[in-house]
Amino acid sequence: MKYATRMNHIRASEIRELLKLTEQPDIISFAGGLPAPELFPVRELADILHGLASREGQSFLQYGTTAGHGPLRETISRRLRQTQGVRIDADQVLITNGSQQGLDFAGKLFLDKDSVLLCENPTYLAAINAFKAYEPRFVTVPTDRDGMLPDALAAVLERERDVRMIYVIPDFQNPTGISWSAERRTQFMDIIKETDIPVLEDNPYGELRFEGETPPTLMSLDKKGQVIGLGTFSKILCPGLRVGWLAGAPQFITRLELIKQGADLHTSHLTQACIQRYAECCDLEGHIGQIRTLYKSRRNVMLDEIRCRFPDEADIVPPAGGMFLWMTLPRHVNTRVLLERSLDRKVAFVPGGSFFHEGGHENTMRLNFSNTPEDRIPEGIRRLREAYDAM
Amino acid sequence: MKYATRMNHIRASEIRELLKLTEQPDIISFAGGLPAPELFPVRELADILHGLASREGQSFLQYGTTAGHGPLRETISRRLRQTQGVRIDADQVLITNGSQQGLDFAGKLFLDKDSVLLCENPTYLAAINAFKAYEPRFVTVPTDRDGMLPDALAAVLERERDVRMIYVIPDFQNPTGISWSAERRTQFMDIIKETDIPVLEDNPYGELRFEGETPPTLMSLDKKGQVIGLGTFSKILCPGLRVGWLAGAPQFITRLELIKQGADLHTSHLTQACIQRYAECCDLEGHIGQIRTLYKSRRNVMLDEIRCRFPDEADIVPPAGGMFLWMTLPRHVNTRVLLERSLDRKVAFVPGGSFFHEGGHENTMRLNFSNTPEDRIPEGIRRLREAYDAM
Repeated sequence: MKYATRMNHIRASEIRELLKLTEQPDIISFAGGLPAPELFPVRELADILHGLASREGQSFLQYGTTAGHGPLRETISRRLRQTQGVRIDADQVLITNGSQQGLDFAGKLFLDKDSVLLCENPTYLAAINAFKAYEPRFVTVPTDRDGMLPDALAAVLERERDVRMIYVIPDFQNPTGISWSAERRTQFMDIIKETDIPVLEDNPYGELRFEGETPPTLMSLDKKGQVIGLGTFSKILCPGLRVGWLAGAPQFITRLELIKQGADLHTSHLTQACIQRYAECCDLEGHIGQIRTLYKSRRNVMLDEIRCRFPDEADIVPPAGGMFLWMTLPRHVNTRVLLERSLDRKVAFVPGGSFFHEGGHENTMRLNFSNTPEDRIPEGIRRLREAYDAM
Repeated sequence: MKYATRMNHIRASEIRELLKLTEQPDIISFAGGLPAPELFPVRELADILHGLASREGQSFLQYGTTAGHGPLRETISRRLRQTQGVRIDADQVLITNGSQQGLDFAGKLFLDKDSVLLCENPTYLAAINAFKAYEPRFVTVPTDRDGMLPDALAAVLERERDVRMIYVIPDFQNPTGISWSAERRTQFMDIIKETDIPVLEDNPYGELRFEGETPPTLMSLDKKGQVIGLGTFSKILCPGLRVGWLAGAPQFITRLELIKQGADLHTSHLTQACIQRYAECCDLEGHIGQIRTLYKSRRNVMLDEIRCRFPDEADIVPPAGGMFLWMTLPRHVNTRVLLERSLDRKVAFVPGGSFFHEGGHENTMRLNFSNTPEDRIPEGIRRLREAYDAM
């Protein structure tokens, strides 16, 4: 028995393992990346599902097309124009099982063993895990509070010969919650356009902005068709239907469609149609507004509580949207140890070190504020302080 | 811009391209591999979906676990015991998006570039397309009407040093409809057990047997835990929900779960729960009985009509189950040309040459009988004869 060499690199996500621990109902978990389920429009979705299956079941329960349900691709195309001002035709959209599948497909499309993938430092762990299946070399580009550092990017591009893809999350990044400034986005694209390297712009949280101006997406600044956009309904509607998309130049989408065909033929026809009907017949934009309002208020509670409980210890960049708050503790603190103490007190978070490909940064942590009701957040932060003091 | 080298191998499936042509309603299509949609239990599924989303939507529309919905894994474990007599615990089952995703995952688990994959000749095209992403060398083992030839298999194993996986479809194979004899299954396992090569047993049609005795599956003959079973609800319930599974030894399932995590986190929680509730509360076994009855009668009509219209030209092994009938025409006939003539007459099928990795066999064809109503089949075969005569 011999496994493929890629299996030496693929390991269980620390976070998913941690999430298993935090499934007990008495734990206050700031660990996961879960949306607030109390906002899921369950009654509308139930009615739509019933209608689709009972009236059009012979079609929606049958095999569907690989690229996805036509009307849903149209809807995504229309919303990309409305929310980002980009012109992406419906046939430049490929439906995936959540955006995680888009990460896997982009890796499959571009990455050979030992070729180079550029990403932010820190970056989204599950993306790294998806890319590892293709055995690239990861090269990280430093970021600060305004996004990726242009000079550092230029230096890396100068040095590395076989860069196949750049993976970035410019809006409310996972894990840091940081949103790149408009200036940094322009600087990034100015550097990129001198190359022919494709950019994968992962944007699950962009529509969850609850304050400040919306800067242009990379896709909207892209003149050459280099940017592939990755989107999802998981954060603006619900994740359990597993519907996301890849959007970009036809040469990419045609090839990604072939990959989709081999990978699982197509995404559930029924769940796609369900989302399309919701977007068409219900108030998706109003629903997103509700999410923003709720998350903003949860963030405020968490921020106030941290400022009150960790007045001198916590360094925070208040996120203007998304689902995460990034906290840096004094240098000597190891948040993996803090997590152990915290779990004793039934509160959980994700130690930040996990998100740095080269390690280090053990004094950082990611706190999710979208999934905990406001009246539980203060108690969670109080327990966290207790755990901190017990170290 | 540079794509991964695997993209040189991945091409559009001839069949999926062909299916696009045959979507016009006036075509009689024997080309696809579609189940009969008129049997989908649309009312029951609609009610179940409504109940799940409205009463438990906060849970079923939220993120789920990577391995799959627990009760569904239990159901699959129980049914494997009932239908195949194998003991596979629920935690040895991983839920996938249809069995196509299982093919991709098995390839990801075992295949390195230039390592060897053994398969039948002919074999299922979409499996080959999934495996191609991992750039293996394909080595085919000849088959006859009773299945894979043991001597040929032994010879290949003697010759090839780096065989990573053997891919087979012993029950009502796609494309030939052939079911391996019980003796051949035993002979196969006797040879395999002397090695440590994993076997991927793809079994989408095994429960669609409408005559004859059911021979043991390879999984049920496996004493060493070498066989990974690949199953799906697509053919016994409906394909549009995209739910299949991989079942096997814990060492495989643990690793396949890591692959699933990177590939798309998990399969839709709602569609999994829907199938589980159907299996629990409705009459799945009775439903499969209905499918068998309908397909048998459609096969009979097609068989009779072919025997009547092509009395001397067609060589057929009548399939005892499944969805396909394999037809061999006289040596000089090229079924790709016949297909062109047939499409002019609004009837479609799949030329058999496509299923042979090394080419040849251009006088064979695959006819699907599950998706065409009985009263349309004779007309389709009549047009086929007309096309044949026009060549």
